[in-house]
Amino acid sequence: MFKMESYLIFKDLAIILLAAKFFGILARKLKAPMVVGEIIAGLIIGPCLLGWVQQTDFLIKLAEIGVILIMFSAGLETNLKELKKSGVLAFCIACMGVLVPFIGGFLLYIAFNGFDGIGTDGFFRGLMIGSIMTATSVGITVETLKELGYLKGRIGQTILSAAIIDDVIGIIVLTFVIGFKDPTSNPVLVVTNTLLFFALAIVGGYIIYRIFQKIDARYPHSRRIPIIGLALCFGLAYCAEEYFGIADITGAYVAGIILCNIRDAEYIDRKININGYMIFGPVFFVCIGLKTSLDGLNMNMLWFSVVFVLVALVTKIIGCGLMAKIFKIRGVDCLKIGVGMMTRGEVALIITQKGMDIGMIDSSYFTPVILLIIISSISVPIILKCLYTKAPDPVEVA
Amino acid sequence: MFKMESYLIFKDLAIILLAAKFFGILARKLKAPMVVGEIIAGLIIGPCLLGWVQQTDFLIKLAEIGVILIMFSAGLETNLKELKKSGVLAFCIACMGVLVPFIGGFLLYIAFNGFDGIGTDGFFRGLMIGSIMTATSVGITVETLKELGYLKGRIGQTILSAAIIDDVIGIIVLTFVIGFKDPTSNPVLVVTNTLLFFALAIVGGYIIYRIFQKIDARYPHSRRIPIIGLALCFGLAYCAEEYFGIADITGAYVAGIILCNIRDAEYIDRKININGYMIFGPVFFVCIGLKTSLDGLNMNMLWFSVVFVLVALVTKIIGCGLMAKIFKIRGVDCLKIGVGMMTRGEVALIITQKGMDIGMIDSSYFTPVILLIIISSISVPIILKCLYTKAPDPVEVA
Repeated sequence: MFKMESYLIFKDLAIILLAAKFFGILARKLKAPMVVGEIIAGLIIGPCLLGWVQQTDFLIKLAEIGVILIMFSAGLETNLKELKKSGVLAFCIACMGVLVPFIGGFLLYIAFNGFDGIGTDGFFRGLMIGSIMTATSVGITVETLKELGYLKGRIGQTILSAAIIDDVIGIIVLTFVIGFKDPTSNPVLVVTNTLLFFALAIVGGYIIYRIFQKIDARYPHSRRIPIIGLALCFGLAYCAEEYFGIADITGAYVAGIILCNIRDAEYIDRKININGYMIFGPVFFVCIGLKTSLDGLNMNMLWFSVVFVLVALVTKIIGCGLMAKIFKIRGVDCLKIGVGMMTRGEVALIITQKGMDIGMIDSSYFTPVILLIIISSISVPIILKCLYTKAPDPVEVA
Repeated sequence: MFKMESYLIFKDLAIILLAAKFFGILARKLKAPMVVGEIIAGLIIGPCLLGWVQQTDFLIKLAEIGVILIMFSAGLETNLKELKKSGVLAFCIACMGVLVPFIGGFLLYIAFNGFDGIGTDGFFRGLMIGSIMTATSVGITVETLKELGYLKGRIGQTILSAAIIDDVIGIIVLTFVIGFKDPTSNPVLVVTNTLLFFALAIVGGYIIYRIFQKIDARYPHSRRIPIIGLALCFGLAYCAEEYFGIADITGAYVAGIILCNIRDAEYIDRKININGYMIFGPVFFVCIGLKTSLDGLNMNMLWFSVVFVLVALVTKIIGCGLMAKIFKIRGVDCLKIGVGMMTRGEVALIITQKGMDIGMIDSSYFTPVILLIIISSISVPIILKCLYTKAPDPVEVA
């Protein structure tokens, strides 16, 4: 054993980081999201084209950590206090914003592949497609509204709150879909396990929250806070899978929610994000590119992708917009809310990845999801600007 | 493939982070360095005692990244401009501060194991022990001098400069020792390769430095700077091993030196450090504990450890102190310099790890190194305080 071969990972990492950064910047210059650039970097340096980097067990595990960090960060950025204030309107919009795309995705799959009956593999694949459609990613909407100066307005705040609730409901839906997937699973057991997990998460989470509050008060901004927080995130991800049969990403997200209200939540989030964007994030997105094979791309899949994108966009407008209309909101404002909720991002990719990991869908489904991210991210800012130019928010009486 | 087993890594990571932080804090409370606490955490949770975490291929690779990040950071923290000012005195002290411990370590090994002749395995093992003794880690000395208010004094600045030059010389010595180790290696080729690497590093490094300066001027404090810097670090680590047969840690260190003078060097260093202390660093130090087996610890090794520590401490005092004396520095100040250079830290562990990776020494040599780190870190602050209380720095005429 004269020469350890482990230094070979440094070559992979160097290429991944450079390519991800280069294409990420390029994508942003073309007004597309950076993650899309990173995925394309993976396609180019991977077996599809240049073959410089292959998927290895090590990279897959680094990417897994990347996923966990993204979900933890998403949880941390939830503002529970704001959420309590946001009220019934945002909650109802979020519910319909999950339900309509979920059903839409399911029906879309059935329309393309036929209905085999409840409980079949095809049935669950349909539910998975539905789950992928649920996750809103409002980053781009927030940027746009900020730029227009309407983020603090009533519509902007409603979109923001609804998007956060939307995430929580989406995670719950996904957890059930994955739980029921195992054909040997006892439905009662799945429901019990899932409910037990969330019940324990609330009770145990409250205790952990109080402990963190104490550490935070005594040692604010110390290194131990993000490190113990990260340990909690890994721990919950593991426990969710091991003891409750629940997706590890649910565990990581719940860990984020538990800590989102301590004073140093933003501090933890910053440290996690630095770890995320320096190594683990690029590895995850590049890995998606590495495993996306263009061989499986036939006309059927292309058609599916186009319709998939349309359904995903329209169902958000219908779900959120109609619900807003029921609350007697002005028509054009309903449209603003619906359009604002259309954007998808990392979480849609993570759910697709999860569906692949457990064998529910294959890697060809990355194509429609990537397409959806690109199209929604480019179109939403344009449409929102048009809507706000034509019909600015009514001036509110302070 | 219904259930991916990769979530098991989260259990390992959660335990490692919690244990490392807990014992790290405990060690600091007992005035010992945190890394020692983290190594002890590894001993406790590892196969030695509780058996909660085993060494896996994944953890070993994460630890390798940790090593690379530490060396990159050490390079980044080198201040070339200060170094140029520091002059002949610091340079001579550093040379003797490497040479005397190197010879001391070699002779110590010979004394315990006999001399088998030049070029034998035992000969190179002796050189390796010598290399381990060379690396000063002035962190604790700097802390102590800062506390005493003498860091900016002439003695403090001399120690600081000498310690930095000491690192550079130590790395060069190590590079040659490792290069010559391979019995099939052609000595001329090793020297040529090593010189070629450093020559290319200077020329290529200057070009890279200028490119980074430009990026830095256009996009100061942007994410691309630390990311491309990290890619450079991984790239050089890989190239050093692959094309020059040089240790990857040398490559990472050189990458740090190349970037240490750009304006955002500190910014890069901060981001690298956050990645280091959040995940990779703890994994590296805990892994040392995981692989340290107390089985191989016999009376001979214990005796060796005690003498090893004594030799390591005394040779630094002799090497640095005598050289200072030659420059006509006051006796007690020579002693301050010698004592200040005695502390060892992470780099000694990294060199030991490297020696193990390439099969030159076995894991039982971690024991003397850990002992050396503990004893030097605890004793140096006490001795320095005594010396400065009895004989403060002479007031300089400004």
